[in-house]
Amino acid sequence: MTQAALQNLSPVEIVDELGREAKAASSALSQSSEEQINAVLKSIAEKLRSHVDALIEANKKDLDSAEQRGLSGAMVDRLALNPERIEGMAAGVEVVMNLPDPVGKLLSETQRPNGLRIEKVSVPIGVLGMIYESRPNVTIDASALCLKSRNAVILRGGSESLHSSLALHSLIQEALEEHGFNPACVSMIPISDREAVGALLRADRYVDVMIPRGGKGLVERVQNEARMPVFSHLDGICHVYIDRDADPVIAREVSLNAKMRRTGICGAMETLLLNKDLSNDIAQDVVKTLLDEGCAVVGDKMAQSLDPRIGSASSEDWGTEYLDAKVSVAIVDNVNDAVNHINSYGSHHTDSIITQNDEAAAYFHKNVDSGIVMRNASTQFADGGEFGMGAEIGIATGKMHARGPVGLEQLCTYKYLVHGTGQTRP
Amino acid sequence: MTQAALQNLSPVEIVDELGREAKAASSALSQSSEEQINAVLKSIAEKLRSHVDALIEANKKDLDSAEQRGLSGAMVDRLALNPERIEGMAAGVEVVMNLPDPVGKLLSETQRPNGLRIEKVSVPIGVLGMIYESRPNVTIDASALCLKSRNAVILRGGSESLHSSLALHSLIQEALEEHGFNPACVSMIPISDREAVGALLRADRYVDVMIPRGGKGLVERVQNEARMPVFSHLDGICHVYIDRDADPVIAREVSLNAKMRRTGICGAMETLLLNKDLSNDIAQDVVKTLLDEGCAVVGDKMAQSLDPRIGSASSEDWGTEYLDAKVSVAIVDNVNDAVNHINSYGSHHTDSIITQNDEAAAYFHKNVDSGIVMRNASTQFADGGEFGMGAEIGIATGKMHARGPVGLEQLCTYKYLVHGTGQTRP
Repeated sequence: MTQAALQNLSPVEIVDELGREAKAASSALSQSSEEQINAVLKSIAEKLRSHVDALIEANKKDLDSAEQRGLSGAMVDRLALNPERIEGMAAGVEVVMNLPDPVGKLLSETQRPNGLRIEKVSVPIGVLGMIYESRPNVTIDASALCLKSRNAVILRGGSESLHSSLALHSLIQEALEEHGFNPACVSMIPISDREAVGALLRADRYVDVMIPRGGKGLVERVQNEARMPVFSHLDGICHVYIDRDADPVIAREVSLNAKMRRTGICGAMETLLLNKDLSNDIAQDVVKTLLDEGCAVVGDKMAQSLDPRIGSASSEDWGTEYLDAKVSVAIVDNVNDAVNHINSYGSHHTDSIITQNDEAAAYFHKNVDSGIVMRNASTQFADGGEFGMGAEIGIATGKMHARGPVGLEQLCTYKYLVHGTGQTRP
Repeated sequence: MTQAALQNLSPVEIVDELGREAKAASSALSQSSEEQINAVLKSIAEKLRSHVDALIEANKKDLDSAEQRGLSGAMVDRLALNPERIEGMAAGVEVVMNLPDPVGKLLSETQRPNGLRIEKVSVPIGVLGMIYESRPNVTIDASALCLKSRNAVILRGGSESLHSSLALHSLIQEALEEHGFNPACVSMIPISDREAVGALLRADRYVDVMIPRGGKGLVERVQNEARMPVFSHLDGICHVYIDRDADPVIAREVSLNAKMRRTGICGAMETLLLNKDLSNDIAQDVVKTLLDEGCAVVGDKMAQSLDPRIGSASSEDWGTEYLDAKVSVAIVDNVNDAVNHINSYGSHHTDSIITQNDEAAAYFHKNVDSGIVMRNASTQFADGGEFGMGAEIGIATGKMHARGPVGLEQLCTYKYLVHGTGQTRP
């Protein structure tokens, strides 16, 4: 159904229509070859480059209404498209295009005594749902990953970026049609009605997995209301624990980078844990460096004794994701204590130990219950690109199926192919 | 908390207490070694063998009340324990004990250009919930698999088998305690109140995955009400498609076995699809063999012409799991048609093509959207044991995480261990 026709329907009817179309489209999409899908991706990149003016024009409508609605400068910046950002999207699509095919991989193989040969192979999940906020580039980034993994996707962009997202989306559908694909492989809810989000979250007969990208309010709503599995993280309460046997330079540089490289990302450190037997020099150096670089520091009683500029932490601080130049500091007795603190207050995202002691590192690796557990490395490496996945659609802190960065591999599931020669079960 | 103390609490309070205890216990359990957990499993097997009389006595209470309540013979049979069945449980625990350790396996490893080494390793999921019906042996079978995979589990057995299950459960807790484990690693809801099931299904802050084992009513309730992921299958509407290029003997023997070996299991064939160009001799032979072996057959118009004993199928038959000596038969134009029929009416469980034609088999393998897709083999092989997993806790038809037989591997998730030497992100 065309976007114009869709706009005459109610939000529930739109989701129902798009859901049915996506499910039908996903079946043919799952059968397409690597060459076929790469041709679509190449075409999307080309169209982005040849439609810069049209995209900037559509984006201007969003920017104008953002101004009228008095959105903050940061919001407007997230919304804005310019030639560099459009080139960035095109290049991103090419990166995904050049990644190895995640579909049809032989994951394992068993030969049974009765002669049955059982292959476990990767296959697309089916239909994904993607709900996001102001950044229009998610329209392209998410679509590229979904297409490469042969999943159909139903997009629901933010109302602030609706014109930009619709313009990007129509380029994707053009590319699909020109290469003989059903345009419903990538569909978009063409209205900004919030009711449509509720309908999409209830559409578990069509949508296999829901992926939210945006602020905490959005993620919380999706986690609470979605009737299908969700790949998401609500918080990134990441810890760096500096062990008694830490290297002083690594301790200072990694904690500074983990907090201050970018304070607003989910992999940023929010709590620093210091071993009580760590030399005072190292502890003071770490904290002083953060303070000198403009980071606000709050701490427990013992931590406060390290520097007069350290404020007092309340119990709420240990569970707070500041997403800002602020960190909480606690003194812990040992690695065991550090692990308990992390498992109690953390969000199972990313945590790092700084130590030269193999035993402490092994204990930390084994017992921290997070998707990513690091040693002597900055938590800001929590990213699909940094993990060698090429690109990610998000980070998941759930335990099922996808944990940590969600890349092409996590957008696939598997099935068993059994090859027999007439076997019957005794 | 002891079972006696628990019985003074409300169903919601019981679940809350057991949930907190299980979550606490799961953390230490996840750190235990293969030797430690195998010692517990060995002890459970020994206790089963040395408590045969006590178990049969507890079981007698269930059998007596089953008689009073007038349960069917089949129900009573499922409920009954005898020395052979108890020995079967003990031997089953030993099978699980001897399986390879599923925890701590290196699943993949990446070396990044910046020197970071990233390992992906298998870890326990955490806390599982298991809701089952009359068979008391599930208490032992499920506990063994959960312990071997270092997951804590909260069991909720059927009210008909409550005395038997509690007696089995107390042996498990004895074995845990004797080997220095928290008995809350395996807990059981000690009351038969149905409200406790609802509370358990809402306990997503404690329970990571719910696994129902039982009739359709139970599975449907769990799928609808559970706030956590569920490993389950509601139906096993399995198909055998006999292609134009089928071997006549394989066609006859596999379809007979797929239907009649055991008619009541989820891997039993419920619908037989025949290619319209299949020779009439083969088609008639297949159908006649089923009829002669006592199987009722209903079919579409064309199928009815194969044998006068074939009744008329209604459109409901294509989506019906008979779990009985009955099969529906449809004539399809080609493998494409067969796949469409299966993906429309099937339950994504197990489907098999009978053909000597590699192209048709490849098309079928690729396009049937089921957890298990077979060629020239009986659908009754849909079983973790037959897949070489040693044992299974059930079969899942969902797409996330576990698909097909759920064995030790599927009871684990993964985390990333990052090994650095002080890397910071540019």
